[in-house]
Amino acid sequence: MPEFRAVVHVMLRRSILDPQGRAVEGTLHRLGHVGVGDVRVGKRIELTLTGERDAVLAELKQVAERVLSNPVMEDVELELHEIQEA
Amino acid sequence: MPEFRAVVHVMLRRSILDPQGRAVEGTLHRLGHVGVGDVRVGKRIELTLTGERDAVLAELKQVAERVLSNPVMEDVELELHEIQEA
Repeated sequence: MPEFRAVVHVMLRRSILDPQGRAVEGTLHRLGHVGVGDVRVGKRIELTLTGERDAVLAELKQVAERVLSNPVMEDVELELHEIQEA
Repeated sequence: MPEFRAVVHVMLRRSILDPQGRAVEGTLHRLGHVGVGDVRVGKRIELTLTGERDAVLAELKQVAERVLSNPVMEDVELELHEIQEA
């Protein structure tokens, strides 16, 4: 059965204030990095799934949207790469 | 001056146990997603920088390695995209 490595990118929606990003931005400014702006902090989750591509993609979407993110507040992007056997 | 959107991906090094990833994996298994494995949870940080590309890339590297990650425990990958004016 093919094996896949997936990456799930989870970011707060643009319309929602990101206090963690604001805190990091303030710290960077105090350290002299005054040209840095619009900092946003999200999650990157990697996982391995096994199965046929269509089934794996469907499971990944379900997991990403129902478990790994909050669809009310967060946007999700998915990557899926088949792991090539050596 | 050109403006860039950068993405900093921060993951725990492979050799370091990821308890957050293990917890997520356990939850997924209990929910019936038994084919999911090797879950790792990291950060995705987006920021905007202004300046010439070489200077921006140097500043981004410095910020990513000294402020946004812990080089002892974490690996960092960088993306840098010039923002095209409309």
